[in-house]
Amino acid sequence: MGNTFGHIFRITTWGESHGGGVGVVIDGCPPLVEVCEADIQKELDRRKPGQSHIVTQRKESDTAHLLSGVFEGKTLGTPISILVWNEDARPEAYEDFKDKYRPSHADYTYDKKYGVRNWQGGGRASARETIGRVAAGAIARKILKEKCGTEIVGYVKQVQNLTAEVDPDTVRMPQVEDNIVRCPDSAVAEKMIALIERIRKKGDSLGGVVECVARKVPVGLGDPVFDKLEADLAKAVMSLPASKGFEIGSGFAGVRLTGSQHNDPFYARQGKVRTRTNFSGGIQGGISNGENIVMRVAFKPTATIMLEQDTVDVRGRNVKLKARGRHDPCVLPRAVPMVEAMVALVLVDHYLRAKAVAS
Amino acid sequence: MGNTFGHIFRITTWGESHGGGVGVVIDGCPPLVEVCEADIQKELDRRKPGQSHIVTQRKESDTAHLLSGVFEGKTLGTPISILVWNEDARPEAYEDFKDKYRPSHADYTYDKKYGVRNWQGGGRASARETIGRVAAGAIARKILKEKCGTEIVGYVKQVQNLTAEVDPDTVRMPQVEDNIVRCPDSAVAEKMIALIERIRKKGDSLGGVVECVARKVPVGLGDPVFDKLEADLAKAVMSLPASKGFEIGSGFAGVRLTGSQHNDPFYARQGKVRTRTNFSGGIQGGISNGENIVMRVAFKPTATIMLEQDTVDVRGRNVKLKARGRHDPCVLPRAVPMVEAMVALVLVDHYLRAKAVAS
Amino acid sequence: MGNTFGHIFRITTWGESHGGGVGVVIDGCPPLVEVCEADIQKELDRRKPGQSHIVTQRKESDTAHLLSGVFEGKTLGTPISILVWNEDARPEAYEDFKDKYRPSHADYTYDKKYGVRNWQGGGRASARETIGRVAAGAIARKILKEKCGTEIVGYVKQVQNLTAEVDPDTVRMPQVEDNIVRCPDSAVAEKMIALIERIRKKGDSLGGVVECVARKVPVGLGDPVFDKLEADLAKAVMSLPASKGFEIGSGFAGVRLTGSQHNDPFYARQGKVRTRTNFSGGIQGGISNGENIVMRVAFKPTATIMLEQDTVDVRGRNVKLKARGRHDPCVLPRAVPMVEAMVALVLVDHYLRAKAVAS
Amino acid sequence: MGNTFGHIFRITTWGESHGGGVGVVIDGCPPLVEVCEADIQKELDRRKPGQSHIVTQRKESDTAHLLSGVFEGKTLGTPISILVWNEDARPEAYEDFKDKYRPSHADYTYDKKYGVRNWQGGGRASARETIGRVAAGAIARKILKEKCGTEIVGYVKQVQNLTAEVDPDTVRMPQVEDNIVRCPDSAVAEKMIALIERIRKKGDSLGGVVECVARKVPVGLGDPVFDKLEADLAKAVMSLPASKGFEIGSGFAGVRLTGSQHNDPFYARQGKVRTRTNFSGGIQGGISNGENIVMRVAFKPTATIMLEQDTVDVRGRNVKLKARGRHDPCVLPRAVPMVEAMVALVLVDHYLRAKAVAS
Repeated sequence: MGNTFGHIFRITTWGESHGGGVGVVIDGCPPLVEVCEADIQKELDRRKPGQSHIVTQRKESDTAHLLSGVFEGKTLGTPISILVWNEDARPEAYEDFKDKYRPSHADYTYDKKYGVRNWQGGGRASARETIGRVAAGAIARKILKEKCGTEIVGYVKQVQNLTAEVDPDTVRMPQVEDNIVRCPDSAVAEKMIALIERIRKKGDSLGGVVECVARKVPVGLGDPVFDKLEADLAKAVMSLPASKGFEIGSGFAGVRLTGSQHNDPFYARQGKVRTRTNFSGGIQGGISNGENIVMRVAFKPTATIMLEQDTVDVRGRNVKLKARGRHDPCVLPRAVPMVEAMVALVLVDHYLRAKAVAS
Repeated sequence: MGNTFGHIFRITTWGESHGGGVGVVIDGCPPLVEVCEADIQKELDRRKPGQSHIVTQRKESDTAHLLSGVFEGKTLGTPISILVWNEDARPEAYEDFKDKYRPSHADYTYDKKYGVRNWQGGGRASARETIGRVAAGAIARKILKEKCGTEIVGYVKQVQNLTAEVDPDTVRMPQVEDNIVRCPDSAVAEKMIALIERIRKKGDSLGGVVECVARKVPVGLGDPVFDKLEADLAKAVMSLPASKGFEIGSGFAGVRLTGSQHNDPFYARQGKVRTRTNFSGGIQGGISNGENIVMRVAFKPTATIMLEQDTVDVRGRNVKLKARGRHDPCVLPRAVPMVEAMVALVLVDHYLRAKAVAS
Repeated sequence: MGNTFGHIFRITTWGESHGGGVGVVIDGCPPLVEVCEADIQKELDRRKPGQSHIVTQRKESDTAHLLSGVFEGKTLGTPISILVWNEDARPEAYEDFKDKYRPSHADYTYDKKYGVRNWQGGGRASARETIGRVAAGAIARKILKEKCGTEIVGYVKQVQNLTAEVDPDTVRMPQVEDNIVRCPDSAVAEKMIALIERIRKKGDSLGGVVECVARKVPVGLGDPVFDKLEADLAKAVMSLPASKGFEIGSGFAGVRLTGSQHNDPFYARQGKVRTRTNFSGGIQGGISNGENIVMRVAFKPTATIMLEQDTVDVRGRNVKLKARGRHDPCVLPRAVPMVEAMVALVLVDHYLRAKAVAS
Repeated sequence: MGNTFGHIFRITTWGESHGGGVGVVIDGCPPLVEVCEADIQKELDRRKPGQSHIVTQRKESDTAHLLSGVFEGKTLGTPISILVWNEDARPEAYEDFKDKYRPSHADYTYDKKYGVRNWQGGGRASARETIGRVAAGAIARKILKEKCGTEIVGYVKQVQNLTAEVDPDTVRMPQVEDNIVRCPDSAVAEKMIALIERIRKKGDSLGGVVECVARKVPVGLGDPVFDKLEADLAKAVMSLPASKGFEIGSGFAGVRLTGSQHNDPFYARQGKVRTRTNFSGGIQGGISNGENIVMRVAFKPTATIMLEQDTVDVRGRNVKLKARGRHDPCVLPRAVPMVEAMVALVLVDHYLRAKAVAS
């Protein structure tokens, strides 16, 4: 269970990291949206392995095949099926994991939950599963852009102890794409890259924080109680592999302020209601207020490392494990398009929900 | 929309802070669970206003009426309807809010979304809505306790700059209930209480952090992809009023560690697989691993304050607003049972889901 | 489970026939719909027991209490909670059913499924559960009428072997309400009433067919595959107690025609596309085509009869059972508003769904 | 929307009749079920075109490709993706339908709903969409058979005016598969085949009734109110293309009986509670009672015929239309595996639901 996301714009992802392929089915996409494989491929290329020397070197072209739901360049309103074949399946690289549980991986919990596990890779816990999300997110972004002018920009805010200075109100995607670590503060970006290189050589890994802003979001998205916009955003990004924390607007730092400091005063300008500050992060009472939606997501250091670790095997014996081959020293650069995709999926779903019950 | 939570154990809450009452309907509760009104009342009393001088002084008895689904002290497997009448409706206290949007409240966004708003109170954005969640959570806890021995303990970890020392592995509810701020570190609790009193007199408000631990959670709860246990927990608590951040296990601090520091080594003891550290927070690959599940939730300072603020009225004019009467200087003590309830609701739902597909 | 119906306009009913009361929570109702208790009461009165001598004589006023979601006569867009207290609870009348399973009732299956049963009445299998549906249906009708001009008219088409002649394209509700059996063919209605009276005196019961037409349904409601309009209508009415069959348009009789006889030729008139015949029953490919939607629902004879029957007790012994007191000789007159309500609920949900994804 | 079916065992189908292919993603399948492509292919072969001279002669091998969710012959508990490529895409055969609406087809309603339509075939309204259902149904059947011994047998009960005599309690699949019309009454089957051949030559088409029985269904499947077992079965089969009616047990004929004739007396035999008659069709109060579940589905004559018909074109002009090439004179033989699949999908979903909340 749990492989479907969304209420109206609903995506269902499928596929293990090893096996035929991975993909997504999108149900509830409105008709007459212009969509082509290139739109999807552009985002998949930002997510794909091997895009630089600081990410995993797994060899996959990650080519999107659009199998249904689009006709003569436009969506039909019917399910859109997108398929990506698996190319770099090397079961032998995983032979060791057949019997030994990788620490902080999903091997042990899968085995206990299902009584079976595709040990050739990470199964559904692999970041490869996110291909479907990013592909669907590409379509969600197109709809939001076309209908509302919404733009979603994510970037690496922090890697280990290195924190960038970025203004979420003005940052633009070209600045993000300007370097391989996807940090628009170029001075800090250089240090991040050097740090990741050092750690990669040691066979170790790093975590960090992705910040993401959604601008020009219409007022009124989100539902008051359980499906508050921030709640759905939290679920969306906390469902990404390796995420450990989420905050919106002032987040954890906001608890140090008093109400009189934290409240965002309203003011009227040119017939629009705005707020002077944005501690709310663009959402009040679970509903977007038209200000920029700003959030941060913490990603732990990647679990697969090249160092020897203590663990247990499937027979319950204490053993040593040392992964061989390739590893991903830092998921952050590739996490940026994943976070953006999840944000787009939440926003487009609430955009359609709001249309349904508009008076 | 958005007033239902859960997949199998599903709750639907209803009711504005003003109007007839508030309540919840629980669908999917297993039969033959022993439930009585006292079980529910006990939790509602921990949530209710006026329980001490550091919380809101709104006068409500919050008495639970069990209208269906229970027969001769046991659940029937049919929907459980719980009703609490509204008693302290004082529309006149809200007269000012009819035309003026309270900063960082939901007044403005509701008006824009719905074109109408029950200005007598906070409508669905009121903390009063959480009565239904806490009532349903009481039943969820009973099931978890009875079937798995699970115990869920929440407490105030931080108020503004005051942070408590608490060991999530050993803290027990009587320690939490020992003082009115619900912080089991009694020395820090005293300071928190004094701080809240000071701020209350100023007419201002405070935020803070609730930490919550779930112990004796069975291995195997949670679903790999979108419905990861941490994703559902994040959504659950981020749907509470005033929450701004969520973290699980190492959270945001975990990004400062390397993979070799952060990975939780497995070891075998007495036929059980355990981890030496718990940076994972009891969840790996979205699935519980049997260790304690530890999470933190940031709550902003309450929006309603007694100080004059800049805002806008419904006709779009810049105006001043000063709330009269009562305010809640700090939601934290009452947020503890709310967080616990949401955690219980997520766990019981995944417990039932796991049963469905168990091989 | 299974107590919620609808995707956007979602209703959750609760309550046993004995116990505090019964009710419904409606989520997803658009804001600014004019609704008052009288709108709801009008429909409940058509459904209520004791309305004539040919239906059950159970004594219930079935008074609707509107507890939330409506403010100053208009819906708020928040959940609407409607409560009806149980008044005529006479557990002693059911004492016999505590141990003996009533044939063709739900007693046995409930006991096997849940291991427990509220033997004081029919529990959730009671027609009393439909109060929530009819109340919610009253609001659904108002929305459809106001937004699309849709009118839904149900009537008794057949009682046992007596079949009425009614033109679904022209029949109007006053004709239906003109007699107590709700059959607009007054000559046949008289015979039906006499037949039901005869059977009631014998302590036996009758079944029949309700036909229902929805006129002025917008083109484009319904979704192509699983949520075809006729599929959702079928589920809706087959979820009513005692229903045994459903047909749309030509139904079972249509299988005797060839394609060339059965196809509905299109023709253009005044800029509109119409069909010359309506064997399709107003739905093609699962989507409304603007013609009248016509369906029929078969209801079996009520299971509770006053005659001695063979059955089994809870200890598995063969026994005799003879119900005492009151029985419902024919559910058909009261089934009319139930069918109409379910049709309204399906149509309003698809109306809102269609709005969500409209390009 | 509407391309997903089921609550726990959930299937999502995708694909137009023309375009890359069609397929299904199954979420919520329990782990460790033995599944291979041959299991699926066997059912697809019963559904596929060209299997005999009395069905459509479209040329498709309908080969199932299992892309995920199965590892070393067993399900993983993760989504199962099944893909079938489209082979016989002949857009030129549909050129005429680009501008003219086929009577009683979905062309017109799709155009009005979506403003766009894949005119190369039937789009999602094509019977080709059912490939995904039949493939998923094959797995559902395996689970039911293995866990409960359940067997599901469908067969053609009626073609136009020819009605077969079949005993649902004893009929077995080899008798059904013994002839190309899938009617186990061999004398009537011969007449049906001759009738279909005659009609095919005329370019016309026929409808009929499929009867389906599910035997050895555990007691307790189905949920009392909206998700009654018969309601979900009705929705399931009424979502198949061309279905116009559904009945369970006594169905429409049952309305001619009195309660005393229609009630199924319980009796005890060898520690089991049974019913002497089965007018209930194996379901009471929406829950299976252990008796055989017997239902009938009416299918209208196929809409595509080779005779000239009146219709309207996309510009709203009255025109003539005459389809060229191939047509399906009678969907009944191929509808049998479709109905069986839908029944299996409903039963397996309720089987898993019942497990979730079992006390």
